[in-house]
Amino acid sequence: MTFEPTERTEIHRLPENGRFDRASAYSILDEAFICHVGFVDDGQPFVIPTIHARDEDTLLLHGSVASRMLRNLRDGGPLCVTVTLLDGLVLARSAFEHSMNYRSVVILGTATEITDPDEKLRAMELLTERIVAGRWPEIRHPNEAEFRKTRMLRLPLEEASVKVRTGPPDEEEEDYELDVWAGVVPLMQKVGNPLADPLLKAGVELPAYLQPYRR
Amino acid sequence: MTFEPTERTEIHRLPENGRFDRASAYSILDEAFICHVGFVDDGQPFVIPTIHARDEDTLLLHGSVASRMLRNLRDGGPLCVTVTLLDGLVLARSAFEHSMNYRSVVILGTATEITDPDEKLRAMELLTERIVAGRWPEIRHPNEAEFRKTRMLRLPLEEASVKVRTGPPDEEEEDYELDVWAGVVPLMQKVGNPLADPLLKAGVELPAYLQPYRR
Repeated sequence: MTFEPTERTEIHRLPENGRFDRASAYSILDEAFICHVGFVDDGQPFVIPTIHARDEDTLLLHGSVASRMLRNLRDGGPLCVTVTLLDGLVLARSAFEHSMNYRSVVILGTATEITDPDEKLRAMELLTERIVAGRWPEIRHPNEAEFRKTRMLRLPLEEASVKVRTGPPDEEEEDYELDVWAGVVPLMQKVGNPLADPLLKAGVELPAYLQPYRR
Repeated sequence: MTFEPTERTEIHRLPENGRFDRASAYSILDEAFICHVGFVDDGQPFVIPTIHARDEDTLLLHGSVASRMLRNLRDGGPLCVTVTLLDGLVLARSAFEHSMNYRSVVILGTATEITDPDEKLRAMELLTERIVAGRWPEIRHPNEAEFRKTRMLRLPLEEASVKVRTGPPDEEEEDYELDVWAGVVPLMQKVGNPLADPLLKAGVELPAYLQPYRR
């Protein structure tokens, strides 16, 4: 299963790093906690970080009914959602070949608002479970006012491209002779020890799904 | 020193998280390894991850002369540069108050190309040193062809806003009575053990500035 490259998603720069398979795109989307959403308002681009969840071949986004971004997207404005995972600093022998190891997805399209209440609640569940799996069954679900204040959007994953860079630096042949250290400094996102709310009710234990992060 | 809020950078959503002081913005810009650059091409927004470096009250960006993004920005197209640092998952007792702890900067403006050769070389040095400080003095500097192939841009830091969320969840008063664990799961970017290029010349040692990451 692949995305059909379009004139807009075709990879011009370093095409050897480009990919169009859905499996690569989906694993990046499912690993990242946030995306950056780009939209245009009065000719000006805006890029806003927000959380996302993938629902099969669509991406779910949410926000307040009062937000400029959500209003813009609901109105069918063209958008770009980019997700980037940073994997390392690539230290080359030449300044020019310094780079980053990363995995990124760029999605183009337009979103539609989810208005069906059941579908909207299900989308809220997916977005919450995306933060920490296991959370939805034990928390208080949205009440009517919260439900109304939240806008849920669905973006079909139709036009997208993936770029991945891995491995050591690519040098000019003659640079391999230089007395300069070269390689990769790995970067990774770590999950720390859960910090209980100071107002946590006495007797409430850390749930099983957070135990692996306890130190 | 603060940014003057404009109609475009004014914080409408959760204004209590908004800031306009340069010190907050600069510390976020200086800590993050990458930014997301938004630009508009034929009405379509694009959001591209790239590295950046701050030079006093300006932001340096670079790229290939062949890149669509760099061509667009050099031509004075409006842009938005967003930098986001993710600090934690905020697990509330209610679905609605689930959130992220984060620090983000949104910069609006137009970039200008750096054409003066000395200034351009200095910008290249700043961008390389941004990846790992101490690197520039020992690596091979750009040759004429590499220098020509690289476009350097400068974006004045004039119109910008900062959003920061920290601390435990904000709940509805009555939710504090629920038997649900609530708190923050910290997230942080970690630097791993440097991996030498398999083609590293024999006898080249790990430089002093990378020793702290050795395990």
